[in-house]
Amino acid sequence: MNKLSKEDIDKKLLRFPDWEYYEDAIHVEFEFDNFKDCFSAMSRIAFECEAQNHHPNWTNVYNVLTISLSTHSANGVTEKDFKLAEAIEMIVEVQE
Amino acid sequence: MNKLSKEDIDKKLLRFPDWEYYEDAIHVEFEFDNFKDCFSAMSRIAFECEAQNHHPNWTNVYNVLTISLSTHSANGVTEKDFKLAEAIEMIVEVQE
Repeated sequence: MNKLSKEDIDKKLLRFPDWEYYEDAIHVEFEFDNFKDCFSAMSRIAFECEAQNHHPNWTNVYNVLTISLSTHSANGVTEKDFKLAEAIEMIVEVQE
Repeated sequence: MNKLSKEDIDKKLLRFPDWEYYEDAIHVEFEFDNFKDCFSAMSRIAFECEAQNHHPNWTNVYNVLTISLSTHSANGVTEKDFKLAEAIEMIVEVQE
């Protein structure tokens, strides 16, 4: 899996308006109504991560979830990160 | 709920050898065999947080979970944090 160039990442991010690219990863923050809704989304995302065998760096504080995606082995952002980002967006769209 | 003094916190932490106190919170890091085991522990902890109506600042990267507990309204560490820390320790002891 090859590391994407900044140009490729910027182009792909046009489809992910909530996400930002910096420090060799793509990042997003989601806000839910409460902890239960937030953790429910995290549970669905966790299953998707296992299915894709790709895992985030993520932090939760009450109703706020921040997620950073990068591909360790490529030392940057790859297609794998955008595939997981797409699944996360679909999960959060339903739950947010 | 009153903020505990550094002396009180240090004394209580004798019972929590994995936890550290700094920046007005108590912190711990747990390492599991893999993501599934880690997220399973997180799920059990999430239910406990809801039951106690007290929520952590926590971060997960694959098999590693870091948790910080503090009481926002007290601007520091209170008995609520130690109550949740105790429940977390019991959950992780079973699962780690």
